Amino acid sequence: MIPDFAFTLLARDGAARRGRMATAHGTVETPAFMPVGTAATVKAMRPEDVAATGAEIILGNTYHLMLRPGAERIAALGGLHRFMNWPRAILTDSGGFQVMSLAKLREIDESGVTFRSHLDGSRFTLSPERSMEIQRLLGADITMAFDECTPFPAEEEQARSSMELSMRWAERSKAAYQARRGHALFGIVQGSIYDELRLASATALRAIGFDGFAVGGLAVGEGQERMFRVLDATVPALPEDRPRYLMGVGKPADIIGAVRRGIDLFDCVLPTRSGRTAQAFTRRGTVNLRNARHAADPRPLDPDCVCATCSQYSRAYLHHLVRAEEILAPMLLTQHNLRYYADLMAELRGAIEAGRFDAVAARLAAREAEGDIPPL
Amino acid sequence: MIPDFAFTLLARDGAARRGRMATAHGTVETPAFMPVGTAATVKAMRPEDVAATGAEIILGNTYHLMLRPGAERIAALGGLHRFMNWPRAILTDSGGFQVMSLAKLREIDESGVTFRSHLDGSRFTLSPERSMEIQRLLGADITMAFDECTPFPAEEEQARSSMELSMRWAERSKAAYQARRGHALFGIVQGSIYDELRLASATALRAIGFDGFAVGGLAVGEGQERMFRVLDATVPALPEDRPRYLMGVGKPADIIGAVRRGIDLFDCVLPTRSGRTAQAFTRRGTVNLRNARHAADPRPLDPDCVCATCSQYSRAYLHHLVRAEEILAPMLLTQHNLRYYADLMAELRGAIEAGRFDAVAARLAAREAEGDIPPL
Repeated sequence: MIPDFAFTLLARDGAARRGRMATAHGTVETPAFMPVGTAATVKAMRPEDVAATGAEIILGNTYHLMLRPGAERIAALGGLHRFMNWPRAILTDSGGFQVMSLAKLREIDESGVTFRSHLDGSRFTLSPERSMEIQRLLGADITMAFDECTPFPAEEEQARSSMELSMRWAERSKAAYQARRGHALFGIVQGSIYDELRLASATALRAIGFDGFAVGGLAVGEGQERMFRVLDATVPALPEDRPRYLMGVGKPADIIGAVRRGIDLFDCVLPTRSGRTAQAFTRRGTVNLRNARHAADPRPLDPDCVCATCSQYSRAYLHHLVRAEEILAPMLLTQHNLRYYADLMAELRGAIEAGRFDAVAARLAAREAEGDIPPL
Repeated sequence: MIPDFAFTLLARDGAARRGRMATAHGTVETPAFMPVGTAATVKAMRPEDVAATGAEIILGNTYHLMLRPGAERIAALGGLHRFMNWPRAILTDSGGFQVMSLAKLREIDESGVTFRSHLDGSRFTLSPERSMEIQRLLGADITMAFDECTPFPAEEEQARSSMELSMRWAERSKAAYQARRGHALFGIVQGSIYDELRLASATALRAIGFDGFAVGGLAVGEGQERMFRVLDATVPALPEDRPRYLMGVGKPADIIGAVRRGIDLFDCVLPTRSGRTAQAFTRRGTVNLRNARHAADPRPLDPDCVCATCSQYSRAYLHHLVRAEEILAPMLLTQHNLRYYADLMAELRGAIEAGRFDAVAARLAAREAEGDIPPL
């Protein structure tokens, strides 16, 4: 039987929260990181291997999937879970962000956005109503309201009118969304770096009523300090009993700082994209496997990691695969990076449960500051 | 304890043989197909997944590995098995074939070959002695004698002098090879399409004495009919009690015909390379997943296949991955293709045991002739 969508707070440590989200496709322990599965695949990973890293929810991209293979096609094939063989929870974005960053010849008006595909130039439209329809066709467990991603930097007046448009679209998203058991609709706070606008946006979304609240329009070049300042202003205005999602974030240090400020959910292409460019996250910072220093190194990438990559392969082998441009390089590095992120989230969850968030965060930062293990 | 290298004939059906090869890294049921692991990886596959397809032995390429990362480096890292995390048997080629097909500025004389790397132009030499040393450094279970791959087509006199050079190199290979328990040295029959030369080559190799015998210089453009004719002339001249390996072959129909003629071992890039170009082998012939006819097809690639790809994904999804150029496409298609080849070999082994080789081969050919399943 499908459970009701629910978010349960299990523990707190300062503003940091340890929670559990129930969805139609399983529970998600929070704080959680969602690997990005843009085109109905977490790149270079089989879904069972994504699950093996510890991920309980992934993100799918409305923009990419509406272009190819199309939401109606995925629906006819049984929905996104079945299409890509991922039986756990899926959150889909609304398409708003990618339309701004990828599509061509955009025309925005009150009704929505008309644009041309970056793949073949064909014409599409997105609106709150169409975004809700697409996300329903995909079968998203968590649907995101359709918003306009405010460019950065933006003057306050530009940011205000963009945010106000997003709030009108949020209302239309809520009206068009068809509630289903175990499924949720999240609103997205906008307002750029302006506290007053962020508060107005949060207030508007609370008035409309959502199952969860995302903070959007960050990680777009404003820098960690300003991002944290926006969170300091915004998060206290969000309801305590609903999950909070910081969209598109981020580096490990960004995630730790955002969890400290009360964020529960994250997504970012960093661990998967880095896996395809020979960058690995380790407990001692990032490592570039292309570097010749690894060519003869028999040690694992991250001596403290128990993932399938670190327990079976040397840095020398990973370096060789990168240099030879073998497909196995992104496979093994993505697997490690996703495990690194999943382990980080598990460590943060444990820290909050134990009331030791500050100490654990300080230890993680100190270890990363040490830098990579010295050459042999 | 490491067993002696041994080849045991378990059954026959006409000239077809069902055998078992014992090596330092496990047994190999024959007839067997060896996936190609050129650069210390079977492309797009994790080694545990290669094993899961049913493969018990893979091929490694001396030429590629001597160039990058280097045989001495692999030896320092514990040998090829450990380097690439493949605990089962490995056969390495001698480097002769790839020097002819890939290297630049080759100079051949009686001593060996000097050439420049196709990767960075750096200068290398290969000789029977150096090839034996490299294959020992890699830790090959089965080492191949160093030969000159005769170009095709070749006049009889050119083929004769090339074959005679290979026989002198075979003698030097045998002299330089350091026998180790559980390990084997195979000689390679050359002689192009000339029966008399093939017989002379087989006789020369038998006189030198090898643990197994390969047929080289085929699958180079001569066509299936001429290839089978060469096998008809050559195989009867090989000793009954040693494994026989047809190098670089081939398509399923080539393999079936060669098993019928008494061949025990095969290798070919076809299943792995095809997996990277959207070509899939099925029990009803080859299928091109790029073709739009698959775009909405919810059925598995091969309805008679039980591999992880066919049991979990639709043709529509595979088509989508191919069109989106996702890494998961070669991963899933290579996995299927290798399983197809492994299942084919298992079916042939069962047919020989049951004394039904002709009937099974006819059934396989008839099924393939039917063509792909009709569109929905």
